[in-house]
Amino acid sequence: MLPRLLERITTPDADGVHAAQRHLDTLTKPPGSLGRLEELALRLAVLRGGPPRIEHPVIFTFAADHGVAAEGVSAYPQTVTAQMVENFLRGGAAINVLARQAGARLAIADFGVATPLARDPALVDCRIGPGTANIAEGPAMTRAQAILAVEAGARLAERAIDDGADLIGTGEMGIANTTAASAITAALTGAAADVVTGRGTGIDDARWQRKIEVVARALAVNRPDPRDPLDVLARVGGFEIAGLVGVIFAGAAHRAPVVIDGFISTAAALVAAAIAPAVRPALFASHRSAEPGHARALAHLALVPYLDLGMRLGEGTGAALFIHLARAAALIYTDMATFKSAGVDGPAAP
Amino acid sequence: MLPRLLERITTPDADGVHAAQRHLDTLTKPPGSLGRLEELALRLAVLRGGPPRIEHPVIFTFAADHGVAAEGVSAYPQTVTAQMVENFLRGGAAINVLARQAGARLAIADFGVATPLARDPALVDCRIGPGTANIAEGPAMTRAQAILAVEAGARLAERAIDDGADLIGTGEMGIANTTAASAITAALTGAAADVVTGRGTGIDDARWQRKIEVVARALAVNRPDPRDPLDVLARVGGFEIAGLVGVIFAGAAHRAPVVIDGFISTAAALVAAAIAPAVRPALFASHRSAEPGHARALAHLALVPYLDLGMRLGEGTGAALFIHLARAAALIYTDMATFKSAGVDGPAAP
Repeated sequence: MLPRLLERITTPDADGVHAAQRHLDTLTKPPGSLGRLEELALRLAVLRGGPPRIEHPVIFTFAADHGVAAEGVSAYPQTVTAQMVENFLRGGAAINVLARQAGARLAIADFGVATPLARDPALVDCRIGPGTANIAEGPAMTRAQAILAVEAGARLAERAIDDGADLIGTGEMGIANTTAASAITAALTGAAADVVTGRGTGIDDARWQRKIEVVARALAVNRPDPRDPLDVLARVGGFEIAGLVGVIFAGAAHRAPVVIDGFISTAAALVAAAIAPAVRPALFASHRSAEPGHARALAHLALVPYLDLGMRLGEGTGAALFIHLARAAALIYTDMATFKSAGVDGPAAP
Repeated sequence: MLPRLLERITTPDADGVHAAQRHLDTLTKPPGSLGRLEELALRLAVLRGGPPRIEHPVIFTFAADHGVAAEGVSAYPQTVTAQMVENFLRGGAAINVLARQAGARLAIADFGVATPLARDPALVDCRIGPGTANIAEGPAMTRAQAILAVEAGARLAERAIDDGADLIGTGEMGIANTTAASAITAALTGAAADVVTGRGTGIDDARWQRKIEVVARALAVNRPDPRDPLDVLARVGGFEIAGLVGVIFAGAAHRAPVVIDGFISTAAALVAAAIAPAVRPALFASHRSAEPGHARALAHLALVPYLDLGMRLGEGTGAALFIHLARAAALIYTDMATFKSAGVDGPAAP
């Protein structure tokens, strides 16, 4: 399915920009006075090829474990990945609270959690394996597994879009997955390991130094090839990250806005954009994470985030908050009166 | 009524900070990982003295005209103030769209629009006069008028709080009111006129130079006394700005979060905080406006805005967008599972 999907990913028509800008300038506000909300409305309109609409957002929160957790790179034990998935399914996590508030459906999928999970009708089974292998010692997964995970993510997103989803959010859970994201970011942006490696859930200095060494070792051992982004994904990525690459492809192919969450989701975006640069107009960077590598990754994608709240939780929490802004932008575009319809004078002659 | 209100404005109990922080740290997320959303939840909880709740927000958008418009400081003719009030009443302006989205009631009041307005049951009459006098030539209003306007704003906000409002947003409309806000900001922060004077609705270089000269002249002619903030308000302020000072007093007195919108609302906050410094814990800076004086005014108040989207429309639009963040913070505080209730492990021993 991947070749078919990639073929559909094309850049929106440039003519749409002028039409959308003209419309925004007829609305009862000084031109440009809503700042980035107008830029966002413009991007949404151009992507959709008409008035934007954010009525049925869906957030995909994919979970998987990482063999590299064995290196002691996280503050939390690996069991927390499964425990948090159970928390998602019971509705008690931050992403549940924020998705409910944003009127977004939350789709939770298991892409390879190590600890056995009870079957649950609300948990989508996309298991590739019981967590990746330890990237400090060798590749995370095979190339075939990476493709399987990308396709599984894409399939979920395509089904949601078929069912009416008009915005796609990305989110993830996986103890040690900032380590994988750091390795991907280093490999695809060319930044050094210490520039793109942060404290994740909040580790102390000693563990942080160890984490930087582990990222450097993962790069040295695997030698991921940046000209082959799927190779980078397979060697130093994660199953949930691969799933999100698929979500991004599906969103872009169907011209649904794809909201990038934090550092790990952005690593997926780096891979997706390296494979198919035309995904870029479909990507919206919700927020700037407190993880130091995030700014670097966003700059590489030429994306400027809309929120900057020092968040570093993941799960899709930044994407959920961004939905309010996207909906605001869409409603400004569709629901405001024009100078003409409201009988409001324009600027006076100087 | 003003002395009674000012007496009620006191700083919340410091003990509340520890209790709220302890609660936030029991929730299923690494401590602090929601960044400023947690800081916001903490501030809301401390102000309320218990779990925060944002269910019935009200945005006050006050309109008035400014005699200084005669100096040619705005890109738009004075008639636009009345036309925009009519637009508010018909629901076609940006603030209508964004307040609806945020589930906020919008309260529109006429504090002194120059152009006659048709009576409308949805328009609250708080008219002090047909616009202020030209501050480039003399005082905007008398001290008695300033007090009347402050009290009128406070009365409206108190009534809303009695009716269940649990968040108070500020907003305004008035051609040339960035000129008054610049003069207030200069007078109360000590900044020079050219530092705090921006392009408002979007004026060209020539008009901008003229506007800076007008602000400097208003300060030279009126010599507002920064040790007497009510004097500053009366000499270089506006009726709608005075009304918002009253809204801030009422919100702070009743421990309702008061959301400051952009540059003009912040000028009202400068006056309110200069009169009653204990309003400060009730103030939430929604966003950083594109107006250059706004950052200066916020720094003076030691407020860090939550959004930075290059907006410069006013009306309460920034306050409306912020409501989503405030509600998110409140829901995080009240609706998330704890590590214990969800059976999620804490950090592993190092």
